[in-house]
Amino acid sequence: MRGNCWPKLLNSFKKARTLIPIATFTTTAANSPKISSMDDSPLKTRICIIGSGPAAHTAAIYAARAELKPILFEGWMANDIAPGGQLTTTTDVENFPGFPDGIMGSDLMERCRSQSIRFGTKIFTETVNKVDFTKTPFKVFTDDRTVLADAVVIATGAVAKRLEFPGSGDGNNGFWNKGISACAVCDGAAPIFRNKELAVIGGGDSAMEEANFLTKYGSKVYIIHRRGEFRASKIMQNRALSNPKIEVIWNSSVLEAYGEKVLGGLKVKNVVTGEVSDLKVSGLFFAIGHEPATKFLEKQLELDGDGYVVTKPGTTLTSVKGVFAAGDVQDKKYRQAVTAAGSGCMAALDAEHYLQEIGAQEGKSD
Amino acid sequence: MRGNCWPKLLNSFKKARTLIPIATFTTTAANSPKISSMDDSPLKTRICIIGSGPAAHTAAIYAARAELKPILFEGWMANDIAPGGQLTTTTDVENFPGFPDGIMGSDLMERCRSQSIRFGTKIFTETVNKVDFTKTPFKVFTDDRTVLADAVVIATGAVAKRLEFPGSGDGNNGFWNKGISACAVCDGAAPIFRNKELAVIGGGDSAMEEANFLTKYGSKVYIIHRRGEFRASKIMQNRALSNPKIEVIWNSSVLEAYGEKVLGGLKVKNVVTGEVSDLKVSGLFFAIGHEPATKFLEKQLELDGDGYVVTKPGTTLTSVKGVFAAGDVQDKKYRQAVTAAGSGCMAALDAEHYLQEIGAQEGKSD
Repeated sequence: MRGNCWPKLLNSFKKARTLIPIATFTTTAANSPKISSMDDSPLKTRICIIGSGPAAHTAAIYAARAELKPILFEGWMANDIAPGGQLTTTTDVENFPGFPDGIMGSDLMERCRSQSIRFGTKIFTETVNKVDFTKTPFKVFTDDRTVLADAVVIATGAVAKRLEFPGSGDGNNGFWNKGISACAVCDGAAPIFRNKELAVIGGGDSAMEEANFLTKYGSKVYIIHRRGEFRASKIMQNRALSNPKIEVIWNSSVLEAYGEKVLGGLKVKNVVTGEVSDLKVSGLFFAIGHEPATKFLEKQLELDGDGYVVTKPGTTLTSVKGVFAAGDVQDKKYRQAVTAAGSGCMAALDAEHYLQEIGAQEGKSD
Repeated sequence: MRGNCWPKLLNSFKKARTLIPIATFTTTAANSPKISSMDDSPLKTRICIIGSGPAAHTAAIYAARAELKPILFEGWMANDIAPGGQLTTTTDVENFPGFPDGIMGSDLMERCRSQSIRFGTKIFTETVNKVDFTKTPFKVFTDDRTVLADAVVIATGAVAKRLEFPGSGDGNNGFWNKGISACAVCDGAAPIFRNKELAVIGGGDSAMEEANFLTKYGSKVYIIHRRGEFRASKIMQNRALSNPKIEVIWNSSVLEAYGEKVLGGLKVKNVVTGEVSDLKVSGLFFAIGHEPATKFLEKQLELDGDGYVVTKPGTTLTSVKGVFAAGDVQDKKYRQAVTAAGSGCMAALDAEHYLQEIGAQEGKSD
């Protein structure tokens, strides 16, 4: 698939607790200092950044250039996915400004990481599994070390929820990124979807919006919904239901995805009648929500009903002074690589301002 | 100077009215349609974008990929500055994520512009001098044409205010970008400022913050202020005044900047005593505010006291439904290229959502 954005920010953290503890990993960049493993004495830093996506690295670039000597935990993911997370599994990113010919997701990620390191960010490939924000300095824990930080930026991202059925996965027999996506805005414009029949799974506002959006490209868009009614707002439902290119398949779920190299169709089961039918589509888009990577916070920050970190709108300030949040972990609306990057920059500037106020700068006498 | 960010978003509009009307300029990109000049019949578009910086082009990339066929007015600047504005006059940009080795400001701008065009944005090198937002479709006017648009994105930017005195300019005899800057966050880390004496002009919060910030790099930072007291907040004043590396030069203004190739020093006049003294500094930073490019709006959008477009925090929504604002024209706080780009993306997604709601999409039956 010519998937063309970083669909979601990166989540290196959710699955952390199921991992066996790994030896401390020091970044391979030549100019990055070597950190001894299993060090018992806590590291001190003015700013600790948790995450490995565009928000985290943009925060690191700005913090490092401001001489804050950031420590960044990029995490260690399960499922053989390297730090950098989902982005490392996408292909072309076409909508990140500055890359007119597109760039591979993993390349973009590696470039951001190099840029963080270039300006002095210390990167640990360890997963943060616990924090203590009850008093300053804040404490950030991995299996191997503890960091004491005057300020913390949470940029752990969120992941799009995906359904699992035969053919839905990444492997040789799966069509993920080969017709199956979780982001219409990112991937809808890809040639493989043009003038083809497509399907969206979901029943909320996002599903309605993505289905409408996809009618720009596809010849027809099916919305497959497991119930007999949508929970989307009336206005968005009406937009979808009155769109001549959209057809709803009610009370149905997908049993299987099949195809040759790329997605060719779906086996769809009507959950009321039990009937299984064949739906020839070239694209399938999950629009069933996202899950932010906030469990490790153990509710020490205010979260919304869906588990996202609550920030003061237009800033990266969280409910705890000195703790900032950027990227998808606090954004359920825009969720693009460039919006995440922008908010990462904001977090670094907000943190810099905070550190100036509390006088935690190097070279300050107080 | 190794100036390293896009200090401010681009303002192709402020000086427009002093220009002689220019012939219609069609973009030179091969895949961009030719537009006949001096066409009397208004063009229609679902979305019109006004601006030429990272906010404008990121909005265009997203809107174009969403098949909204955006029309973008990049303006025509006075002072021999090409569209792309101030960015085209900077050198290395080091803090835009994805460019670990830095990139020339003008190159980055050209890449963003190419990316807009690649996905189908129609660019006019004409200055918008009037809008009519009183009813839909909105009207956008240049000297040569009128565009009717279902949605409009304002991304005209702001410019840092600069003082004018001998040696302050861009020319052969000036030290702008050769020691003189208007953005400490952008340029402070440049080698030419390391362990050197530096000066900041201003008396507000920004001046205090920039002076504190510059103490990370410079051996000493002077704040030159024309009055005998600051208007900055108490806390920021205290931070600056208690910083051992900062010295305030009260009641003073700069008469002249001098040097060999790069800035070497300033002639500073005490406005109370009339005494002129010599201040040997390698850097001078203006921190006297910014001016947003909003005059052409003639207050048809809600502006704040400083003339910035008011947006609903965390969104790009303005006081007029269907009109969105992104980048520095609505941001007096962060003002970075990547934050502008992020908000440009948000504006396109907000506009897309709005257009879906009002049913203005192509292919809709209503």
